[in-house]
Amino acid sequence: MTDSPEGLPPSLDAAINFDERGLVAAIAQQLGSGEILMMAWMNRESLSETLKTGQVCYWSRSRGKLWRKGETSGQTQHLKSLSVDCDGDTLLLTVEQNGVACHTGRRSCFFRQWNGQKLEDVLPVEQDPETLYGR
Amino acid sequence: MTDSPEGLPPSLDAAINFDERGLVAAIAQQLGSGEILMMAWMNRESLSETLKTGQVCYWSRSRGKLWRKGETSGQTQHLKSLSVDCDGDTLLLTVEQNGVACHTGRRSCFFRQWNGQKLEDVLPVEQDPETLYGR
Repeated sequence: MTDSPEGLPPSLDAAINFDERGLVAAIAQQLGSGEILMMAWMNRESLSETLKTGQVCYWSRSRGKLWRKGETSGQTQHLKSLSVDCDGDTLLLTVEQNGVACHTGRRSCFFRQWNGQKLEDVLPVEQDPETLYGR
Repeated sequence: MTDSPEGLPPSLDAAINFDERGLVAAIAQQLGSGEILMMAWMNRESLSETLKTGQVCYWSRSRGKLWRKGETSGQTQHLKSLSVDCDGDTLLLTVEQNGVACHTGRRSCFFRQWNGQKLEDVLPVEQDPETLYGR
């Protein structure tokens, strides 16, 4: 079998239910620690690039283009494994996160925890966002 | 402050960016082991019920109604913590999973792993789906 026009292996493409926008949700989890780092979206092209390069590439819905994670900030994600859920609408990426995943400079995007009364920041800022993005 | 009409605390409601369908993605992670069990969707009503009862309730997009996880199968999820990501479009639920999360009888819905050639089943069927759903 040859790859699809977007470069995805057909058996993988067939197992993924890309939505009406051509997107699938992707959860990034740190290998070993099991921390959930972030959730973002992929289209066929970004998934294909991720598999080819081993560096995680998402699809930015807001910018409407490929989002090579860490391209600006250096906070790259190296793909260790890829799983597909039972109904094919979510991917689980096991990754090696270089530095921090969140644009706020925190390790994970899930740093606000509900304490029953309000959301509390439970993760420290490890890197200055101004340094990460050269602002 | 009083709760919103759907019963959500206003500060939590304000932090969540429900999409045009009124939904937010929710990732369920087992407390302790860090296993990712599943990803599903919540609306305000299902999130409110989850917070009030401590038992995870999703919104079923296919059935168009509240999905009280485990109501039929007995495989309930008890909420241990709730986090919101930086842009408010994904929730992370830390849970105590009773039994298995997947309707196939596997612990996690992410049981198909890409090996570079094909998807391989990497998790055993722990419970007979026919027993779970009385078919």
